[in-house]
Amino acid sequence: MTAGGLGRTTTQRATLFTQGEPFVFESGASLGPVEVAYETYGELAPDRSNVVVICHALTGDAHAAGHHGDPSRVGWWDNLIGPGRPVDTDRFFVVCPNLLGGCQGTTGPASINPQTGSTYGLEFPLLTVRDLVGVHRALLGHLGIQRVHGIVGGSLGGMQALQWALDFPTEVDRCVLAGVSARLSAQNIGFSAVARTAIMRDPNFQNGEYSGSGVSPDVGLAVARMMAHLTYVSEGSLREKFDRRRQGPDEAGMTFATDFEIESYLDHQGRAFLDRFDALTYIYLSRVMDYFEPFADPSLQLAAVATEFLLVSFDTDWRFPTEHSLFILDSLVAGGAKARHEEVASPWGHDSFLLDVARYHEIVGDFLVA
Amino acid sequence: MTAGGLGRTTTQRATLFTQGEPFVFESGASLGPVEVAYETYGELAPDRSNVVVICHALTGDAHAAGHHGDPSRVGWWDNLIGPGRPVDTDRFFVVCPNLLGGCQGTTGPASINPQTGSTYGLEFPLLTVRDLVGVHRALLGHLGIQRVHGIVGGSLGGMQALQWALDFPTEVDRCVLAGVSARLSAQNIGFSAVARTAIMRDPNFQNGEYSGSGVSPDVGLAVARMMAHLTYVSEGSLREKFDRRRQGPDEAGMTFATDFEIESYLDHQGRAFLDRFDALTYIYLSRVMDYFEPFADPSLQLAAVATEFLLVSFDTDWRFPTEHSLFILDSLVAGGAKARHEEVASPWGHDSFLLDVARYHEIVGDFLVA
Repeated sequence: MTAGGLGRTTTQRATLFTQGEPFVFESGASLGPVEVAYETYGELAPDRSNVVVICHALTGDAHAAGHHGDPSRVGWWDNLIGPGRPVDTDRFFVVCPNLLGGCQGTTGPASINPQTGSTYGLEFPLLTVRDLVGVHRALLGHLGIQRVHGIVGGSLGGMQALQWALDFPTEVDRCVLAGVSARLSAQNIGFSAVARTAIMRDPNFQNGEYSGSGVSPDVGLAVARMMAHLTYVSEGSLREKFDRRRQGPDEAGMTFATDFEIESYLDHQGRAFLDRFDALTYIYLSRVMDYFEPFADPSLQLAAVATEFLLVSFDTDWRFPTEHSLFILDSLVAGGAKARHEEVASPWGHDSFLLDVARYHEIVGDFLVA
Repeated sequence: MTAGGLGRTTTQRATLFTQGEPFVFESGASLGPVEVAYETYGELAPDRSNVVVICHALTGDAHAAGHHGDPSRVGWWDNLIGPGRPVDTDRFFVVCPNLLGGCQGTTGPASINPQTGSTYGLEFPLLTVRDLVGVHRALLGHLGIQRVHGIVGGSLGGMQALQWALDFPTEVDRCVLAGVSARLSAQNIGFSAVARTAIMRDPNFQNGEYSGSGVSPDVGLAVARMMAHLTYVSEGSLREKFDRRRQGPDEAGMTFATDFEIESYLDHQGRAFLDRFDALTYIYLSRVMDYFEPFADPSLQLAAVATEFLLVSFDTDWRFPTEHSLFILDSLVAGGAKARHEEVASPWGHDSFLLDVARYHEIVGDFLVA
């Protein structure tokens, strides 16, 4: 944890499917080519035994660690990945792909459909977590990798890690699932439904065909992000960080403009998100999570799963609270799989999985090398 | 609680201020006339000693009890108010006004400004809870009432009851504050800020001048309502009521349309709200709550407050959890006022204050007649 970071990293691209040999979705739909953006860190061992895959969450991308030229702007999981860090790049060859359906280099609903010359929009097939895993596996095949030492993911990232191990247990030695759910609650689905309503009823959404129109559903996407962000952080951390502090003097009178610091913060979160994310990807990937329920799959055969699982939940995460991790733990253990869980104290709510929480990093690091 | 209801009730109207003698807001702004819609239930005692005022919350109105012709559609607090009920109309003369800034009969931002012939829109002054109380007191003066036996309010309604008793303690014998906060948290303000963003950035908001344009910020208002509703109910009650149930068969495949029952429910909540509520009132009254912080007022002199307070919070209310009530209790008691608090077990979250929770109704009824 005291070692330096990765230094400069680069996003690479691979074309994994073609129009003639398309990717087939779980729904039966198919599509090609599929471009995948990914990054790798560290060196692949000659026996290819040291691969760790990083699966990103709803709004992540392939740029998990290092920087792209500006050392002050590092990847979204740079605190976890690097030389001497829990996902130790002196030891592991780390691969992080942008998800199918994404908007940062991997084919998604905002990509051009070669059959029409226009963006896919809502013609893009609805996705499952299995579809995300299918493209990840194709990327590993492209890199000559058939088996991985570990998969690490938080939130939607953990869903991919879990599904992968359940479906292909001989390919995955260890799985780290941080702040994960395998069965979204009505409240979870409700928040996602409000976010999608804000986006899809934004008049600039234009039934998903906003590309090239000069406008996009920025209001809906910003509102979705602001609301989601509020649910990713704990009430206590917001109190600590903002309480009722105002930007101007308290005597300045009332206004509908951003006055309380929490308003300014959320407004910034909403606007900054527009620079890096696409509304179609948001609705597709949030919908993936709603439908994810792997332990309800009648074809599931847990006894065959040899993967070892580490589940980490955070005591202030109210979006995917500890009971969601315990449900996964109980389901895995009841089926004979090897799994353990730890609830880690952290003030930052669901976002804790992205943050440098000492105990969390310690157990992830230990688990990957034990 | 077993007696019949009030039967048919009628909304009445009063004109309380004029252009020449306007209502003066706490901010110094002024406005007239102020029309107030209100309902009354029960009979005023000859000595006028039996008055109970009901203060409604953000989306309430003057029609608290009885029905307007259809006995199956009763007022929003009909379970609390009526013959033999906790606010017993055989004993009390009950008055419920629509708030200043409202949109159901009382002058608000969607009302016509007589000076311009157009709606006030964003020219309507920003409000404080004191302003709401000021108009309530003017209505009581109009009815010949100088002192009340009790004021009962939940959420924003409780804020009015509290402010009234703090400012005019000799006018108020008893105050019931259910599910109240006297100091919104950063999370509370954050949710309100997201709601206002959804409304005010809706292109149909047109800087508040949507009246007569043929369109209104329906998307923003529906999104605001859907999100707020999710925060008013508990995670457990949503699980109990909806869990992950779908409207169609589970095998029906994935869709962006409303599929899970919780989606259909929220969609209905959002759309139905448009029929009865105005977007301007929503942003004005939510902003009132953000700024409400009576115990930070340096002019407050609690020792003079003779009013007795009953505070009720609900164990599953995560919008205004028990700690908010305890803050009010501690502030009142530290200042020498007479107050007691009870946390009532109820599965329904913040909305519990509107529902027929036996223990809650019992202590409110007892408190008003003790």
